[in-house]
Amino acid sequence: MGETTNTRIVSGMRPTGPLHLGHYFGVLANWVALERDHDCFFFVADWHALTTEYADPSRIKGFVPELVKDWVAGGLDPEKCVLFQQSQVPEHVELNLFLSMITPVSWLERCPTYKDMVKELAAKDLSTYGFLGYPVLMAADILLYRPGAVPVGQDQLPHLELTREIARRFNYLYGEFFPEPAAVLTPSPKMPGLDGRKMSKSYGNSIALGEDPASMKKKVMSMLTCAKRARLKDPGDPKECNLYPYHELLTDKARLPEIVDGCVNATWGCGDCKKLLVENLTAFLSPIHAKRVELDKNPDMVRDILASGNARAKAVAERNMAELRDRLNFNF
Amino acid sequence: MGETTNTRIVSGMRPTGPLHLGHYFGVLANWVALERDHDCFFFVADWHALTTEYADPSRIKGFVPELVKDWVAGGLDPEKCVLFQQSQVPEHVELNLFLSMITPVSWLERCPTYKDMVKELAAKDLSTYGFLGYPVLMAADILLYRPGAVPVGQDQLPHLELTREIARRFNYLYGEFFPEPAAVLTPSPKMPGLDGRKMSKSYGNSIALGEDPASMKKKVMSMLTCAKRARLKDPGDPKECNLYPYHELLTDKARLPEIVDGCVNATWGCGDCKKLLVENLTAFLSPIHAKRVELDKNPDMVRDILASGNARAKAVAERNMAELRDRLNFNF
Repeated sequence: MGETTNTRIVSGMRPTGPLHLGHYFGVLANWVALERDHDCFFFVADWHALTTEYADPSRIKGFVPELVKDWVAGGLDPEKCVLFQQSQVPEHVELNLFLSMITPVSWLERCPTYKDMVKELAAKDLSTYGFLGYPVLMAADILLYRPGAVPVGQDQLPHLELTREIARRFNYLYGEFFPEPAAVLTPSPKMPGLDGRKMSKSYGNSIALGEDPASMKKKVMSMLTCAKRARLKDPGDPKECNLYPYHELLTDKARLPEIVDGCVNATWGCGDCKKLLVENLTAFLSPIHAKRVELDKNPDMVRDILASGNARAKAVAERNMAELRDRLNFNF
Repeated sequence: MGETTNTRIVSGMRPTGPLHLGHYFGVLANWVALERDHDCFFFVADWHALTTEYADPSRIKGFVPELVKDWVAGGLDPEKCVLFQQSQVPEHVELNLFLSMITPVSWLERCPTYKDMVKELAAKDLSTYGFLGYPVLMAADILLYRPGAVPVGQDQLPHLELTREIARRFNYLYGEFFPEPAAVLTPSPKMPGLDGRKMSKSYGNSIALGEDPASMKKKVMSMLTCAKRARLKDPGDPKECNLYPYHELLTDKARLPEIVDGCVNATWGCGDCKKLLVENLTAFLSPIHAKRVELDKNPDMVRDILASGNARAKAVAERNMAELRDRLNFNF
């Protein structure tokens, strides 16, 4: 199987803005955990960002180094994994073309996430050929490195299944070549926005991963808690509180019963509850923020991380594509 | 406009088998004529060949040098034009991806040649994403060199119009960048097969451009002529003769009235008519065949032609893509 090893993992993120806590707990924390015992390839999916941002691609450029800063500040170690930028490894588009030739249009049209995204992003005109082919490019991104597995949340399973189908069809036509990457189902705990809706920068209800602790404190102190607790002596319900899910992720598990108790028995106030969260969030964000400040001061660091990661990714991509061209006798 | 000049021409052929006289008079003769006063880029469309040959791409490899031999033997001068191989200039797939993002699927679905080809090639499963995107890749192939014009036959006008529409949409979104290539309508005279049907290798009714004159002679001498001329004294009708269209293309125009006269007045036999054609075809094919034999003996010549052409094409492609990335601020 050449490049394939059972422990190789490939995953990417689109550079469309700063990461927030929702991204951290939903994706990045999983990557950091996987890094320990996997051969990880994590990429900035800048070509993918074009599928939705084609009308104004100019902002992508700035988001690329910011995303890498978020990754490294958030715990990824560029020595232990390959952090790279998709567009700097042109083999992605070459494999995308090969896979395009063997992927039936009907497989793409029935992809549930395709239908959802067209609906969700109705304001943008996404009826493009490139957007329809999003899952093919994703398959190319993954299969190029012939990984044993891909970390996915439950909602991305259909996309991965399409990648596996494309790999099977390739293997059927040209002989065993790509391993069918297995799904590593990663936990994606609920991290709602400050107002209880989904955390999203566009809703203005997010805490950035690189957020200055002072700014975070202001946001937390003005959060709405359980509506039942109009007065201190009114008992509340953590299930209806915007704050409590944050404690579940950021506060020592052993202290949670105490917090619940204080709320339902009205023995402590929402202010106390917020202060504890601010304390824990500060402890969580401070090292990330410090690392980010360091990276901001040394733009060369990010440049070097990407240059080294791109070279490492490209070496694998070149080898695999050379082998693929040999297999198809499409080698000149 | 950077790379654009009014005299640049881009065109390609798919390497799917040896060229025959139909290809020569329909396309190659036009290229040879254009070469004189245009800055010509002619490419072997090997990635395009994959759209229909994906199930068994292994044969493409052998067809690539053969096609170049046909071109050069047929009169193209690699010093005067750039002869190159699409897959050796990866900027084609990169531009293809950029254009995919801005091309509505509906533009592709309504492309008349798409519908025709799906029908025509029903035996092959062409309902693939890559086949649907054929015109986008074609637009990338052309626009990559920012040519002023493209030589096309009448039937390819819809494809070129799609290329022009994609160029317009790109210019609308990102500012004037691609000239809209004009159509150079090239003559595509009728060159039927030996049996009067369309000339096609798969019908077994073709004369290859590199055909040995002896083999050609055998084919011509056994052609069916006008059915009315069962005997020498029976008058015939050149319009119903498989041979006459060949005279129209290969025999001195001044002699045509004499041939028509001999046929309709039964003053000469079909054998005489065939002998004259064999003579003229021999004169036409001999230098081509000789050049081909020379090229066959020196595989390095074709390799060098492609290596030099690929380098020249790549230099232009790299410059134009660098400028495009700058325009989109997608430069890293």
